[in-house]
Amino acid sequence: MPEPADLTAVEDVLRGQRIETPSWAYANSGTRFKVFAQPGVPRTVREKLDDAARVHRHTGVAPLVALHIPWDRVEGGAEGWARLAAYAREQGVRLGTVNANVFQDDAYRLGSVTNPDPAVRRKALDHLRECVEIMDATGSRDLKLWFADGTNYPGQDSLRARQDRLAEALTEVYERLGTGQRLILEYKLFEPAFYATDVPDWGTAYAHCLRLGDRAQVCVDTGHHAPGTNIEFIVAFLLREGKLGAFDFNSRFYADDDLMAGAADPFQLFRILYEVRAGGGLAPDAGIAFMLDQCHNIEPKIPAVIRSVMSVQEATAKALLVDTEALAKAQREGDVLGANEVLMDAYHTDVRPLLARLRESLGADGDPLAAYRASGWAERIVAERVGGEQAGWGA
Amino acid sequence: MPEPADLTAVEDVLRGQRIETPSWAYANSGTRFKVFAQPGVPRTVREKLDDAARVHRHTGVAPLVALHIPWDRVEGGAEGWARLAAYAREQGVRLGTVNANVFQDDAYRLGSVTNPDPAVRRKALDHLRECVEIMDATGSRDLKLWFADGTNYPGQDSLRARQDRLAEALTEVYERLGTGQRLILEYKLFEPAFYATDVPDWGTAYAHCLRLGDRAQVCVDTGHHAPGTNIEFIVAFLLREGKLGAFDFNSRFYADDDLMAGAADPFQLFRILYEVRAGGGLAPDAGIAFMLDQCHNIEPKIPAVIRSVMSVQEATAKALLVDTEALAKAQREGDVLGANEVLMDAYHTDVRPLLARLRESLGADGDPLAAYRASGWAERIVAERVGGEQAGWGA
Amino acid sequence: MPEPADLTAVEDVLRGQRIETPSWAYANSGTRFKVFAQPGVPRTVREKLDDAARVHRHTGVAPLVALHIPWDRVEGGAEGWARLAAYAREQGVRLGTVNANVFQDDAYRLGSVTNPDPAVRRKALDHLRECVEIMDATGSRDLKLWFADGTNYPGQDSLRARQDRLAEALTEVYERLGTGQRLILEYKLFEPAFYATDVPDWGTAYAHCLRLGDRAQVCVDTGHHAPGTNIEFIVAFLLREGKLGAFDFNSRFYADDDLMAGAADPFQLFRILYEVRAGGGLAPDAGIAFMLDQCHNIEPKIPAVIRSVMSVQEATAKALLVDTEALAKAQREGDVLGANEVLMDAYHTDVRPLLARLRESLGADGDPLAAYRASGWAERIVAERVGGEQAGWGA
Amino acid sequence: MPEPADLTAVEDVLRGQRIETPSWAYANSGTRFKVFAQPGVPRTVREKLDDAARVHRHTGVAPLVALHIPWDRVEGGAEGWARLAAYAREQGVRLGTVNANVFQDDAYRLGSVTNPDPAVRRKALDHLRECVEIMDATGSRDLKLWFADGTNYPGQDSLRARQDRLAEALTEVYERLGTGQRLILEYKLFEPAFYATDVPDWGTAYAHCLRLGDRAQVCVDTGHHAPGTNIEFIVAFLLREGKLGAFDFNSRFYADDDLMAGAADPFQLFRILYEVRAGGGLAPDAGIAFMLDQCHNIEPKIPAVIRSVMSVQEATAKALLVDTEALAKAQREGDVLGANEVLMDAYHTDVRPLLARLRESLGADGDPLAAYRASGWAERIVAERVGGEQAGWGA
Repeated sequence: MPEPADLTAVEDVLRGQRIETPSWAYANSGTRFKVFAQPGVPRTVREKLDDAARVHRHTGVAPLVALHIPWDRVEGGAEGWARLAAYAREQGVRLGTVNANVFQDDAYRLGSVTNPDPAVRRKALDHLRECVEIMDATGSRDLKLWFADGTNYPGQDSLRARQDRLAEALTEVYERLGTGQRLILEYKLFEPAFYATDVPDWGTAYAHCLRLGDRAQVCVDTGHHAPGTNIEFIVAFLLREGKLGAFDFNSRFYADDDLMAGAADPFQLFRILYEVRAGGGLAPDAGIAFMLDQCHNIEPKIPAVIRSVMSVQEATAKALLVDTEALAKAQREGDVLGANEVLMDAYHTDVRPLLARLRESLGADGDPLAAYRASGWAERIVAERVGGEQAGWGA
Repeated sequence: MPEPADLTAVEDVLRGQRIETPSWAYANSGTRFKVFAQPGVPRTVREKLDDAARVHRHTGVAPLVALHIPWDRVEGGAEGWARLAAYAREQGVRLGTVNANVFQDDAYRLGSVTNPDPAVRRKALDHLRECVEIMDATGSRDLKLWFADGTNYPGQDSLRARQDRLAEALTEVYERLGTGQRLILEYKLFEPAFYATDVPDWGTAYAHCLRLGDRAQVCVDTGHHAPGTNIEFIVAFLLREGKLGAFDFNSRFYADDDLMAGAADPFQLFRILYEVRAGGGLAPDAGIAFMLDQCHNIEPKIPAVIRSVMSVQEATAKALLVDTEALAKAQREGDVLGANEVLMDAYHTDVRPLLARLRESLGADGDPLAAYRASGWAERIVAERVGGEQAGWGA
Repeated sequence: MPEPADLTAVEDVLRGQRIETPSWAYANSGTRFKVFAQPGVPRTVREKLDDAARVHRHTGVAPLVALHIPWDRVEGGAEGWARLAAYAREQGVRLGTVNANVFQDDAYRLGSVTNPDPAVRRKALDHLRECVEIMDATGSRDLKLWFADGTNYPGQDSLRARQDRLAEALTEVYERLGTGQRLILEYKLFEPAFYATDVPDWGTAYAHCLRLGDRAQVCVDTGHHAPGTNIEFIVAFLLREGKLGAFDFNSRFYADDDLMAGAADPFQLFRILYEVRAGGGLAPDAGIAFMLDQCHNIEPKIPAVIRSVMSVQEATAKALLVDTEALAKAQREGDVLGANEVLMDAYHTDVRPLLARLRESLGADGDPLAAYRASGWAERIVAERVGGEQAGWGA
Repeated sequence: MPEPADLTAVEDVLRGQRIETPSWAYANSGTRFKVFAQPGVPRTVREKLDDAARVHRHTGVAPLVALHIPWDRVEGGAEGWARLAAYAREQGVRLGTVNANVFQDDAYRLGSVTNPDPAVRRKALDHLRECVEIMDATGSRDLKLWFADGTNYPGQDSLRARQDRLAEALTEVYERLGTGQRLILEYKLFEPAFYATDVPDWGTAYAHCLRLGDRAQVCVDTGHHAPGTNIEFIVAFLLREGKLGAFDFNSRFYADDDLMAGAADPFQLFRILYEVRAGGGLAPDAGIAFMLDQCHNIEPKIPAVIRSVMSVQEATAKALLVDTEALAKAQREGDVLGANEVLMDAYHTDVRPLLARLRESLGADGDPLAAYRASGWAERIVAERVGGEQAGWGA
């Protein structure tokens, strides 16, 4: 463990870290086989914000809530959004990234902005423009774009023409952005497109963002890579290029499983956070959004989000404990084992006491999960949220 | 191409091949992101049989229709099933494999026959027993079991205890089977369980079937393997052990994508069929069920099934064209390139004229897709199947 | 099959295609477990050219031979190279791409141009500069760079610093290039680096080439991707960006197996060539080098190269047979099955007769493998190439 | 952390654990691209034993050394082996598992025991019988069989015939075994065979061992699986079937990378050891050999082995710290998050102080790597091992 003076610096960074939780993590979700409904699940966006506020109360570092349009759309236009933002503030949280959804309308069967039909492309683009309007109203910085677009069969559509259409759509959205707003482009290897995905990897997202300009940035979703991909390399590369805009944290064992961050490979999460640190991404002005993007299909949702926030924090804390001087020295000297040992030493450290102390200094409980259990919130929402329609993935 | 005399033998085998189509392939389906509804989709099991009958009419080799319980459940107990079987016969098809479904009830959130709760296990077992009852009524030979059972997080449940529960359940079902009935156990690497699946690979299915007895056999679903798996090796191995009971044909590029058979890797499908041939699996009494198990999410369903049946046929025809004497000679002599060339020679042959001729000899059209398009069936079902509720994956 | 008039156009393109074979494919090679020596293997670069000339004689489309430095280094500086080039011409072939080798010296244990030690980086750069000198002498257009650089353990070296060093090295080499010379950067997912590779994917190669300038282009080695990667998408994307410089053709079932092109997934090879055609890459001035990069560990080398050249040709021929008008129409209409069918129709066509005719028109035999066997060359080299040291992968 | 009384039980198990190190880990090794020679590497099997003895001295739990025949063959027949065993004992270690090698002779180009040529099969079998003879002389319990056998191209040989030949060979070896001797069959997905491997997965190894009898057991090499494979599931399954005989520990990021155990995914190693514990595999009479099987290509070998032994110990210690009562309770109650938390709680514990104490109680230093560095052994072998031929992978 570092000296106490250094520990203060570590704690300062951890105190400043902001982890954004997604509104849809609080709603019902499932696989194509079955959505298992859970009691107490929110029925409105305000109830989602209530749940997110609990996560922030118990962790102290999760004040931002990402929205999904149209799932979280409210009535009343700009005024309606202002009221929602005020409601969020009253609960102690803020509205965050706006996520567009151009994959759940029958029109999008063959794609949205890359659809061969110009009318469908127009429809999709109008939705994206509406999302920027919402950002104007909510004061959100980031528009996150993930496209389900792609093809299932070789020949189904022209791979190249779809890139042309994609570039055209991105340009129109980018030009619509206001000052201080960003376009965050997410990539994903496969699903729901099964043969070719239009933004399948970081290279594709990077190339498009490069052409768009400085305010177009790449989102790394930790679950969206082929087996064997070194994700921390991508993180380091994008940071070096100034093109890392956001993370979607979650875990996968095989494909895009959307399990809790840190659940499948905590060592990988640590290595990713170490590269974020090494590339300056933990600095307050680095502009990297640390989001969760997860679905809790079989486990209770609020404690699963709390657990995930804690896991990102634990990985960050360990990354901050790496003795960078010793590491640089071993690397310079070609000391393979020594350099690896410096990294592993930080990883093997049990940072839970440090984080418990940190939470207490933020006015939260040292053990967020125990505090949540003791709070009675779980029982309360089961009792109160009766009637109405539960929000679901897509609802 | 072989001599005409040999061609007759090839055509005889092809004429005797039976490809079973799944009732759910005719219904709506989708990914966890969206089910795109299609006009004209069946609303009842009878309408599914109507569609399957069209596939058989145009291909001449698809007289069997696999059922899924409870999706295809009918009223009236044994009598109701007898009426359904009679209806099928009138359309020129027969009821085939019964597929159990123990994954779409809220009770199965943590598993069915491997659930830690004995009451849930009982419920699942009762369903499996009901499926055997249905087989008694329909005269179906095979009960196909696929379990969505598994866990999403390390520690969630005891991997070993779940195997004990699985073995117990399989034993009870096996003992319930009547004479001439078989239990077909399917394996799948992942999804919907994301950390550990209870029957994840052929080894697990094989080990359980071995303990059960001769009438327990393994089903190879071509989409259910890890990347890099040599599926034809598994086919050859199971045939050698007398444990290959059935295929679920479909295609995948990345995961269990459920695309049309032969769409992703027609060479692999050919190699699989070659091993079936080499292991004696094309013989009429080999007892191997050649089923499709696919979902047509964005393409029209009936022609997609026709295309898949044709692809399995094409792979079979090419497998039959392999000059086994020349192959054995090259193999014996260690002639790596020569042996490979013999195989590739058959693969590169265009078997479409041969199959067109075969279909005509069976009273069907040489070009099934053109004949289907010309038949007006697609337009008719769109016009007639109005009102009611479309069948969907899970409905 | 298209009309005869169109066939002429198809044959014209095929007649103009040039496939480059690698000098090391004629030498002994193996896995880390064992190199199985074969009789008759070349002992000198001239003997490698002799073998390459046989491949060209029998196929008519393989006049270029890629060199590997230092494996193929000759005495006598520029004059020595001129003599070698003259020797090649006398055999009917030409010296092609120069491949640098900065991975087989003890100094490169921790990397070459990305090594933490500046002295090692200098040594590697000097080798790369020497390769450009050789290109000046041989008249080769392309310098192909593949780096074995990377790390085996997390922390071993700074991922970011290695990119800085890589960029610096590439810039120095790029600036050294003469008019008409190109730098071709190859990427590879893993091996021999096992944790992080410094140029692991097309995105990394693309980003570096973009900064370097127009004469820096990406090489797609078909064996160098993670499972599930859609290679033809990458091909289409790079062509659209004007950044596809070369192919290294070979086959893999699992990793970089270096099997004969088309041996593992001929349908994939067809799809790749189709995207090349669709992106204009078959045009004579497109500047794409169609190279083989293979090792023939257990099969005889010359016929294996002939077989691979034929497979690339077959894939190209099928790609050229795709009815692009019908395809575009089906794509425009959103006819998923129809569009796929157009592609598959070309793929299923047996193009061997067409190619046999083409070869005869080029003065070669219609059946190159039979002609090679009949030529007695295999027996002759076994008899003549006695004594001396056989060339091997690395020798 | 558990109560002190429980800690004693934990320490007792750890004190009894035996980790076997492979003689070849001390020798030079590399990839197919390059073997980087290191100074001080052993030139004889005795020098390998010397190095292994250092590992045992510093860790206290590595008294067994696995041999590889013919790499470690000694002169003098049974007497020679007896002398070697005595030499080992003098250094404080014992001769362990005998590893057969039937992949490095030119005869084995197309396989060893599955070769189409009966003469080659005979030669391979004679080697395997010789290995049992050596076991008779050394008193080794286990014969470990890994076959490089397989094919590179579809059609190259009959997949089925190769299984027949494999079964025949295994039977002959099994029948040759003496009382108390075991046959341990290792599987591997790919490499050096690139199309089909004859023992590619645990199912194949299991099926063969089942037919052979009780003394045939499966070896799980942690690097030999397809991406996405759940290794701890296999471990749990084989233990339940009484068929887990040994581990080959090492790490891989993508393929069979042979990195230090625990280097790529320490959480996976922990999960594996937890299943070993849960299945009774840590009991002294469980008969499971905990071997390392690694190659240290770029890092110094002895400290890399020490680090690996420590990593296996750390994973074992964490596995022993799992509160099994709390875990069983949470599992029974279907408490997904609670059960996962019990497991993670043990994983996050820093067990290094506990293991330091344990080593001291065994008479070793608490920090083995520091003690090794301080011992001067590294400098001594560099100075003394001059001249002669260094042992290498294959030498």
